[in-house]
Amino acid sequence: MKEWFEELSTFVEKDRISWGESVLDLHSRDQSHHTPVRPDVVIWPQEVKEVCQILRFCNEKKIPVTPWGAGTSLEGNPIPIKAGVVLDFSLMNKILDIRAQDFQVDVQPGVVYQDLNEKLRHMGLFFPPDPGARATIGGMIGNNASGIRTVRFGSTRDYVLRLKVVLASGEVLQLGSRASKSSAGYDLLHLFVGSEGTLGIIVEATLKVVGMPPDSSAMIASFVDLREAGNAVFEIMRAGLEPGALEVLSEECVALIKKESDLDVPLKNLLFVEFLGPSMNYLRDVVLAAEELLKETGADTIQKGIGREKRDILFKARYQLGEMIIRNHPDRGFLTTDTAVPISKFPQLLMFARKITHGLDIPAYIFSHAGNGNIHVALMGKKGDNKEWSLIQEINERLVKKALELGGTCTGEHGVGIGKRPFMELEHKDAIVWMRRLKEFMDPNGILNPGKII
Amino acid sequence: MKEWFEELSTFVEKDRISWGESVLDLHSRDQSHHTPVRPDVVIWPQEVKEVCQILRFCNEKKIPVTPWGAGTSLEGNPIPIKAGVVLDFSLMNKILDIRAQDFQVDVQPGVVYQDLNEKLRHMGLFFPPDPGARATIGGMIGNNASGIRTVRFGSTRDYVLRLKVVLASGEVLQLGSRASKSSAGYDLLHLFVGSEGTLGIIVEATLKVVGMPPDSSAMIASFVDLREAGNAVFEIMRAGLEPGALEVLSEECVALIKKESDLDVPLKNLLFVEFLGPSMNYLRDVVLAAEELLKETGADTIQKGIGREKRDILFKARYQLGEMIIRNHPDRGFLTTDTAVPISKFPQLLMFARKITHGLDIPAYIFSHAGNGNIHVALMGKKGDNKEWSLIQEINERLVKKALELGGTCTGEHGVGIGKRPFMELEHKDAIVWMRRLKEFMDPNGILNPGKII
Repeated sequence: MKEWFEELSTFVEKDRISWGESVLDLHSRDQSHHTPVRPDVVIWPQEVKEVCQILRFCNEKKIPVTPWGAGTSLEGNPIPIKAGVVLDFSLMNKILDIRAQDFQVDVQPGVVYQDLNEKLRHMGLFFPPDPGARATIGGMIGNNASGIRTVRFGSTRDYVLRLKVVLASGEVLQLGSRASKSSAGYDLLHLFVGSEGTLGIIVEATLKVVGMPPDSSAMIASFVDLREAGNAVFEIMRAGLEPGALEVLSEECVALIKKESDLDVPLKNLLFVEFLGPSMNYLRDVVLAAEELLKETGADTIQKGIGREKRDILFKARYQLGEMIIRNHPDRGFLTTDTAVPISKFPQLLMFARKITHGLDIPAYIFSHAGNGNIHVALMGKKGDNKEWSLIQEINERLVKKALELGGTCTGEHGVGIGKRPFMELEHKDAIVWMRRLKEFMDPNGILNPGKII
Repeated sequence: MKEWFEELSTFVEKDRISWGESVLDLHSRDQSHHTPVRPDVVIWPQEVKEVCQILRFCNEKKIPVTPWGAGTSLEGNPIPIKAGVVLDFSLMNKILDIRAQDFQVDVQPGVVYQDLNEKLRHMGLFFPPDPGARATIGGMIGNNASGIRTVRFGSTRDYVLRLKVVLASGEVLQLGSRASKSSAGYDLLHLFVGSEGTLGIIVEATLKVVGMPPDSSAMIASFVDLREAGNAVFEIMRAGLEPGALEVLSEECVALIKKESDLDVPLKNLLFVEFLGPSMNYLRDVVLAAEELLKETGADTIQKGIGREKRDILFKARYQLGEMIIRNHPDRGFLTTDTAVPISKFPQLLMFARKITHGLDIPAYIFSHAGNGNIHVALMGKKGDNKEWSLIQEINERLVKKALELGGTCTGEHGVGIGKRPFMELEHKDAIVWMRRLKEFMDPNGILNPGKII
């Protein structure tokens, strides 16, 4: 037991601090392939005051502090690579206020977004960013998370109105406004969105929520050629049809889903598109227009008029895909790429992904939040096989370089964490210098989630 | 002629630098009541390189530099209160690229947004933030401008994907991405949105644009009691009807508009609501729902089915209102308040504005981007009458304090400039310390638009 454990123990009750082996293990890894590193100690704060005390103490002693949501991230974002303290926010999980009349909620960082949406559903409201996993709001803000609904509703960034953050020094800042718009000075608020706990720790958030459009209609199109699916995505977006979801699953993903569920879809590359709208009249028109485009771009089969039940099954399968892939390759670990490009470049990036993963000995699964030009490739490497893993790293790097060349980004939604750090300079060029300076400016002792982003 | 004029003159051709009286006068004032201050010299840059050279030079000599768009702002934002150099961007007014397929444009800062929209119209696209005046994109980004369409489409902030900025040191930064979403590190991009040229000078922007919904239908409701108009706004927003515009004009504004135009509307408090949509079927449903709410909240008359022609006349009148007010009080100057609150507090703020301006000797006009809870009161003070002007300042202050008490902001869209500086601490509390630090961090010599925001 380190000597500073004793002092830390005075800030919270005994049952909310632990250095037990299994607890440290649970907080040593996220869902990525990145090497686990155990923290020295895990604390479950319940009050803002406790977070302040802990940070003030750790800042003085230069002890690393890493905030922890649900550990569902995919780039090692919360792995405490310099050990120290992990602050697990699972006990700060209260929905503090729902102001349906203002389309706003106040939440603590440990709230799981699915639980929030379950509460909001009864009021016809929802919080649109949807990473799929049981992520917490704190983690989603830290990573600027997004998902299936982002093509229509935007990323987490677009839904953060106010934040209460604790800085490295233990100081509390209240940022933003409950007004729906403001021009009152510097936008410090959004600096913390996507900062992965490296600039400050989020202890409360006011989020915008939106009304759930009353009607929906989904379609599934199959394509023999993945290229045609890519073109169809572009045409649907270009036509301004504003889908509520637009996903692509390559044939190998579909094979897996069909094996693990009884989803009735063709064993082909699939394009899934859902429209949300104010009335069935509207949906009829937009579905007709989409059908036309799907035919023109070479769809093999088109199922339309898919209702909520089948849609939910498909969404669920999409979100369980990661787990399915892992389960089906028990001797392999996985790396998921996360590049995103402007929509006109999407077909090109998709075919590049296909080309460089085709015919490999390594299993590779391509799936995509296609409407955002965001492509994931799950690459499965044999555990301990350095040759395979360096090939996987090379493929990842080639995809990132291609995406940047096409005007895109190395990470659409998973954040930088450990895995995307090597590409920050390539993506941001001279601006990376200012990102480094900003980190030093906000956290001069470098205690907050050290070793991430920059 | 100051000794440093000579060196500055080497950076641009002779006809793009001036210290002529009339030029300095033109750059000494915006459209606000704030005291004009002349710069020492005005330069019209044409190239990024020139901006870099000028800033590098001025930073060394500690000469203030203030960027200038069209001078249409309302809080003294571009008034060079410490003199020095004004950089007038009216010659950097090129639309560099329209990528309709990606819903993106690249523009120089001097482009007037109305000219951009004129170009985009033929492609069925538009850039939604709409401050009304002939504002430039650079100015709009600097102020995070918004307007009539913001209730549906958001503020300028929501449309900035990439920026090229020149820092005080003359260094160029490229920020953001062309991908529709990204989680790649710190959001430096949005720090510059709403920073009023105090952190860096915008020399190029990539903006998101959107498709123009094909159909629209507008309504005008009149209310004897302003309170009822306020309640109607809240009910329409709460019902999730998502208007494309939702404006309130108080009776005194309507009287002026009717005097100056032949707009056929009742001489009452007016609520203007427009719906945009994919089909006339949809619009029929939503208009019926709105009509019901307008009746329930006490509308005196309701005109519906208003087409584009009459809508355009009304929009134009709304945007010319400021000028009309000034023209009708030739011996008076004006101050426009700009508070915004969460929508559920809008009726309360509206009635507070009515109450504290009722029965004054000073003419007061209340008008509102009501769907955003954003209220303007134009207060007309006799030029040189200190008693009237201190009363006006007091009313402004009381409105700001009320808005903050209701969870709102001192400025919804006009920015901080000179006029809202006294309220920054009240609104941001401890965060103001970090805003000051940030300014020092980015611009240690304090040369960029000094005396603004903080």
